[in-house]
Amino acid sequence: MERTSFVGMNCSVARTLEVIGDWWSLLIVREAFWGTRRFDDFQKHLGVSRNILTKRLQKLEADEILLRRPVSDAARRLEYVLTDRGRDLFPVLMALMQWGDRWQGGQRGAPVVMHAPNGEPIAELRVRDTQGRVLAPREVRPQPGPGAVRQTRQRLAAIAARVTERASG
Amino acid sequence: MERTSFVGMNCSVARTLEVIGDWWSLLIVREAFWGTRRFDDFQKHLGVSRNILTKRLQKLEADEILLRRPVSDAARRLEYVLTDRGRDLFPVLMALMQWGDRWQGGQRGAPVVMHAPNGEPIAELRVRDTQGRVLAPREVRPQPGPGAVRQTRQRLAAIAARVTERASG
Repeated sequence: MERTSFVGMNCSVARTLEVIGDWWSLLIVREAFWGTRRFDDFQKHLGVSRNILTKRLQKLEADEILLRRPVSDAARRLEYVLTDRGRDLFPVLMALMQWGDRWQGGQRGAPVVMHAPNGEPIAELRVRDTQGRVLAPREVRPQPGPGAVRQTRQRLAAIAARVTERASG
Repeated sequence: MERTSFVGMNCSVARTLEVIGDWWSLLIVREAFWGTRRFDDFQKHLGVSRNILTKRLQKLEADEILLRRPVSDAARRLEYVLTDRGRDLFPVLMALMQWGDRWQGGQRGAPVVMHAPNGEPIAELRVRDTQGRVLAPREVRPQPGPGAVRQTRQRLAAIAARVTERASG
């Protein structure tokens, strides 16, 4: 896939999509969260070809999302489990699921509801400020972080100028 | 892309990835959140080929993530803006960005920090219960929703049985 933009690469969304930006990869991660560990089980539950599954598992292992290890000390059979990096994708997965529930559920609604220990469905993931107030996209401003390169700083300055112009126009 | 699994399709993650599960599509959505509206600007900021951009914009329009409209009543020029469905992808995008900041930032850290009106960076998106308590993945249980088909119910029953077995084992 083409990736020629420097600005695009100086972007945490792009960097995340490099790791999981593939239809199957995130579904493999979903399966891992649901306790699937063995190649044959991933294959059965996802209905993906063995060939594609092998490649995706290799990439997820290389990207340290999944760890491949023997089932036990004595066993030769291997299983795949989530690393800390992989487990930290939980909010991403839940945000995707909740959007699908809201907008792709059709007339019947959510296929799966994630329940918390208090017996209720988990809360909807919302972008909030540090005081817990829900923020609309237009309230949130992108600003250069410590890892911003020059092009990113220029781009963000242009966005900030346009926002100011619109607000005063 | 192959999608042979019925269970996989009865899944809001899969249904969401059908709409935005492509490297470029989510970056186009990111650009739209940052105020980009015109074809040439998407092309310039993303460094994507015109051919691919045309296809992705068409798909995002067909999926009602973006709306194409004249810049003004008199103008023939068109611009792309987010629909309600598209704007509701904001938590998905922020969850992806924050994961990238944490795990793909390298030594320098986040390229971009999203600031709230209170001057501070937005809060980290975390999976929480309805009382606001942060939940670890293992605390959350998938249960059948109103849109669950029989295969999904069977699958979730098997997962629940395995969890119980492990807890008592």
